[in-house]
Amino acid sequence: MIVVMKVGTPEVEIERVSSELGTWGLTPEKIVGKHKVVLGLVGETADLDPLQMQEISPWVEQVLRVEQPFKRASRDYRHGEASDVVVSTPNGAITFGENHPLVVVAGPCSVENEEMIIETARRVKAAGAHFLRGGAYKPRTSPYAFQGHGESALNLLAAAREATGLGIITELMDSPELDVVAEFADVIQIGARNMQNFSLLKKVGAQEKPVLLKRGMAATIEDWLMAAEYILAAGNPNVILCERGIRTFDRQYARNTLDLSAIPVLRTLTHLPIMIDPSHGTGKSEYVPAMAMASIAAGADSLMIEVHPNPKKALSDGPQSLTPERFDRLMQEMSVIGKAVGRWPEPAVVLA
Amino acid sequence: MIVVMKVGTPEVEIERVSSELGTWGLTPEKIVGKHKVVLGLVGETADLDPLQMQEISPWVEQVLRVEQPFKRASRDYRHGEASDVVVSTPNGAITFGENHPLVVVAGPCSVENEEMIIETARRVKAAGAHFLRGGAYKPRTSPYAFQGHGESALNLLAAAREATGLGIITELMDSPELDVVAEFADVIQIGARNMQNFSLLKKVGAQEKPVLLKRGMAATIEDWLMAAEYILAAGNPNVILCERGIRTFDRQYARNTLDLSAIPVLRTLTHLPIMIDPSHGTGKSEYVPAMAMASIAAGADSLMIEVHPNPKKALSDGPQSLTPERFDRLMQEMSVIGKAVGRWPEPAVVLA
Amino acid sequence: MIVVMKVGTPEVEIERVSSELGTWGLTPEKIVGKHKVVLGLVGETADLDPLQMQEISPWVEQVLRVEQPFKRASRDYRHGEASDVVVSTPNGAITFGENHPLVVVAGPCSVENEEMIIETARRVKAAGAHFLRGGAYKPRTSPYAFQGHGESALNLLAAAREATGLGIITELMDSPELDVVAEFADVIQIGARNMQNFSLLKKVGAQEKPVLLKRGMAATIEDWLMAAEYILAAGNPNVILCERGIRTFDRQYARNTLDLSAIPVLRTLTHLPIMIDPSHGTGKSEYVPAMAMASIAAGADSLMIEVHPNPKKALSDGPQSLTPERFDRLMQEMSVIGKAVGRWPEPAVVLA
Amino acid sequence: MIVVMKVGTPEVEIERVSSELGTWGLTPEKIVGKHKVVLGLVGETADLDPLQMQEISPWVEQVLRVEQPFKRASRDYRHGEASDVVVSTPNGAITFGENHPLVVVAGPCSVENEEMIIETARRVKAAGAHFLRGGAYKPRTSPYAFQGHGESALNLLAAAREATGLGIITELMDSPELDVVAEFADVIQIGARNMQNFSLLKKVGAQEKPVLLKRGMAATIEDWLMAAEYILAAGNPNVILCERGIRTFDRQYARNTLDLSAIPVLRTLTHLPIMIDPSHGTGKSEYVPAMAMASIAAGADSLMIEVHPNPKKALSDGPQSLTPERFDRLMQEMSVIGKAVGRWPEPAVVLA
Repeated sequence: MIVVMKVGTPEVEIERVSSELGTWGLTPEKIVGKHKVVLGLVGETADLDPLQMQEISPWVEQVLRVEQPFKRASRDYRHGEASDVVVSTPNGAITFGENHPLVVVAGPCSVENEEMIIETARRVKAAGAHFLRGGAYKPRTSPYAFQGHGESALNLLAAAREATGLGIITELMDSPELDVVAEFADVIQIGARNMQNFSLLKKVGAQEKPVLLKRGMAATIEDWLMAAEYILAAGNPNVILCERGIRTFDRQYARNTLDLSAIPVLRTLTHLPIMIDPSHGTGKSEYVPAMAMASIAAGADSLMIEVHPNPKKALSDGPQSLTPERFDRLMQEMSVIGKAVGRWPEPAVVLA
Repeated sequence: MIVVMKVGTPEVEIERVSSELGTWGLTPEKIVGKHKVVLGLVGETADLDPLQMQEISPWVEQVLRVEQPFKRASRDYRHGEASDVVVSTPNGAITFGENHPLVVVAGPCSVENEEMIIETARRVKAAGAHFLRGGAYKPRTSPYAFQGHGESALNLLAAAREATGLGIITELMDSPELDVVAEFADVIQIGARNMQNFSLLKKVGAQEKPVLLKRGMAATIEDWLMAAEYILAAGNPNVILCERGIRTFDRQYARNTLDLSAIPVLRTLTHLPIMIDPSHGTGKSEYVPAMAMASIAAGADSLMIEVHPNPKKALSDGPQSLTPERFDRLMQEMSVIGKAVGRWPEPAVVLA
Repeated sequence: MIVVMKVGTPEVEIERVSSELGTWGLTPEKIVGKHKVVLGLVGETADLDPLQMQEISPWVEQVLRVEQPFKRASRDYRHGEASDVVVSTPNGAITFGENHPLVVVAGPCSVENEEMIIETARRVKAAGAHFLRGGAYKPRTSPYAFQGHGESALNLLAAAREATGLGIITELMDSPELDVVAEFADVIQIGARNMQNFSLLKKVGAQEKPVLLKRGMAATIEDWLMAAEYILAAGNPNVILCERGIRTFDRQYARNTLDLSAIPVLRTLTHLPIMIDPSHGTGKSEYVPAMAMASIAAGADSLMIEVHPNPKKALSDGPQSLTPERFDRLMQEMSVIGKAVGRWPEPAVVLA
Repeated sequence: MIVVMKVGTPEVEIERVSSELGTWGLTPEKIVGKHKVVLGLVGETADLDPLQMQEISPWVEQVLRVEQPFKRASRDYRHGEASDVVVSTPNGAITFGENHPLVVVAGPCSVENEEMIIETARRVKAAGAHFLRGGAYKPRTSPYAFQGHGESALNLLAAAREATGLGIITELMDSPELDVVAEFADVIQIGARNMQNFSLLKKVGAQEKPVLLKRGMAATIEDWLMAAEYILAAGNPNVILCERGIRTFDRQYARNTLDLSAIPVLRTLTHLPIMIDPSHGTGKSEYVPAMAMASIAAGADSLMIEVHPNPKKALSDGPQSLTPERFDRLMQEMSVIGKAVGRWPEPAVVLA
């Protein structure tokens, strides 16, 4: 931590600040510049709040952080090595991670009825997906929009899991549903709107199922890693980060701006696996294939793609869903890129 | 709702779309333009999702909403009249609303101990504030930062209420704490990070205490009114909207961008009372007075201002807190503007 | 400037970096922290580019600037004192500055014809404005939209100046028109889209007329002050800064987000006078009065307000223009706030 | 164009508005909805300004555009066909376009001296690039930073062109330099900060050299296409669009947010070729390779990549430049993706 004092700070005030910092267990080193004096802090500073420290004296101009505020999420925490998140599914263990093949998650925005979810599961399984996504509890902007079928939808996901062997990823919206969601899901999703619902993060951190943490729509990379840190600090090491588009000034054509540079940025900062959701990331099915291809080329470890047997009748997010036919074709297109970069999975042994 | 068909749509497809829309209970009227055909939809369209409707045919170019998506929150819902949110406090009933004097809420970011919260309450009361704010449960970016004293802090707020007669506003972060927060708070605050925690919105909508709904940091005005709509639709008509700064590209000096134009915009769209929080809105105490003054001049119904007896020792948000002395002076400065616009409260009769 | 070295940097590399920095005329001081080593740079660092310095070694983690990158624009440059920009007009000298009454600039977006500009000038003069604004060269998003009447419009502005004694503020879009614009304008406006047209900035910096520098729609406060620095560095000390709304994620109701916190932020950073343009800042005439009032309360030195004798027939920006009647009423409303904060001008002696 | 009238508009006012629109040569069709009346406008509406039309009556609630505001830039203008921009270089004609191989542009941010520019040109030529980029006139945030060597740098670019046969792309900053830049450049670049310098756009539109139009950092896709429209409307059909990162709320790690979804979005809207600049788009050389790969997978027609023989000594933008060695390797990596998607160029016949 670096404390920059204002031009003209009296020497006695600098001494006072130094000795006050000393009482915090820090050892300030003074650098006398041409115009300003700077105090460099040696010691355990990761838990300190720069804004807090600024209040130590009206003569403090700014406080600059030199250490990253996240620890367990940092790449350094694993000495530069990527972490693997292994999820067991009826079809076998699937590993999310930098040194493993791409993992494909597909399925509808929400679970509508048994026939549609099982049909979708069979179709995406046949095309090569490893996980089925599908919402039982749906965060919707309007209270008058379809809110998901809740617990009964979880039972339908279980049926689809049994029918196909696919792992299940579904969203948890509120802590009272944690137990039931954890019972049915192989991976628990925390949605973008709950990325800073810190109570919920602590609770999914205190249970064992892997967690898919979507980036909030105005969350910085640092905010996002700090949200992951909540889960890791509570004891659950199995966190997958999912970029799903951020909110910017241009929302006319694509609903969000898919931030693919998050891939190389996260790679240098964290050991956690990285998933991209081009369906929410663009909001329109016609833009999904190009962005799915780009994600693989940029080094994503996993993709989440919305597929619906009949998008025009979907109860939610139809416009961003691919038909099963388009998804089949996209998997072919993606395999070309995936093989080129050495991340395409070997054909799975089909158990179902 | 207006459905715009692409250039060159076959006549037969237009007929098909029209008749399909007919099965939804809508009566499309066809307008034949120079290049395009447009279908105007007559009927109950407020619950329809434009994105959904776009999927009805690949020939649909766009679907434009003509009705606002919020109903109970809209100004029209009360035939253009403002609503009053009346809160009873030991010092008497206080009314938030366009046709009432400015309501001032002040206090520390978080409740730290009995002495500090009671001292702060006495000071802000003496300066003219009507409510005491103070966090018992604190949403913090880092899991390693102070998270609030929880239920014991609620007891200290109760003591401060008894000592001063001020009403209490405190944040609810998670549904399991709803009952205890509702027991102690006169107004329940939903924070910016939970603005789209729809489960929580439904629950505060299903109880009786008034709700202060802070704007999410990337929430549009429409998102925000839809969040209020969740509370109203669940049965609680007492919602106060609080602008607290949005996230923009410039975060170097002010931490957020306080969007004061929300005041005139909301005034035309909704009947709900409007509060401004210049402390979170700027993140620095030195910018708070100017923005507090501006808020009153722009027509705010209420202000929330952070005050801490010793900001440099504050456990959270010290840099944006005013000292009690600066708050005294600010109340004097604000009274000049408040009187000029006819919104300054008469001195309250002191009961305590 | 502070150079932070990565964890594990070899001692020999730290020595190499230190001695290389020494060849740049800097004297690095080494601070050995618990995990990292930091080099504090003493010397003339204001001209150094932190990004550049990062390349000195692959072991550099980050370079933090401690000095501000602007000099002549900084408040320190004038030892904390505000600067006055004095403009002579037929009605006498008008001073823009923190210690002077509010200066009101009003008029239409563009000069349409002689009758309208002279009528508007008379009306805004009668209401108390000091300057007439009016565009001769108009930056328009579409090449098919009205582009301004150019030089002939400058002649009409001269006629309006003669008829009313008001000073003239008009926009310069391209350097070949500098001479003619400088001949007719009392203050030369550089528009938001040209805020980083550095060639143009140098040219208006090399002539004598005062310059009104609008903030670019995605310009940070620092970018903006650096643009002012271009003008100041070229020799022209008379720069007025004008906030006119920034571009954010919400553009549905207000076209831009008027950043009023720029007022207290700029006040601490720079000595230059501050103007607010609530007309472009909101894009809708109905929001202008509230934001004009707020600007005065927040401490603006000047306001620019669009007034058009018949907004619905305006060739540009009609929706954000006030009628002369509404402007009359607004001046009354503003005077109440202006007097309350001690910034309202004494009635001018009318010469015309 | 669709005019939505407010709830409760008197019938007589609707008639008045209809007949006034009739005088503008439009034929309004009235749709009577459950709550509102809507007027659909048949006729030539592309030149109308929706904001303008809103002023026709205080009873107008909103005006919605149904036609796109750009014409010559639209995909429809060429009946859905992509356009080719053919540039002749000493090494032969190079075509930018959707149906042609990827075109690679490489070189330093600015031209520093003869040796460095010729060495860089030879190196990027050997690696397979088609064009050399290099700034003679540099837009810099600070007036104290290196501003480019101007005309003498153009001569050095000419020497590099002669030495290698590569085409030259260099930036034009101000209209007085148009002739000299057009003399030396094979493609004239308009930088992000000048994207809405409409005077300059008109001037490059009125000459014959192809134009590379970078996206402004807060320009919407529509703003950008309207800027292209200025050039096209002035008579120059050879415009290449270049995405170089937009400004968002997160600027801590990547300096800008590279908006790769612009590729599929532009593909559906316009016939113009699309280039991506991952160097400015991310601001850090370590993120460039991943984003270059992603761009090709997403369908970019061209890439612009900064290469500097010694980035740590670069006079500008060192941190985002690749070394020639890293660029060699990247070209190998890119060729794998390029071949996979069928866009990799055949080895050029080397003339030099």
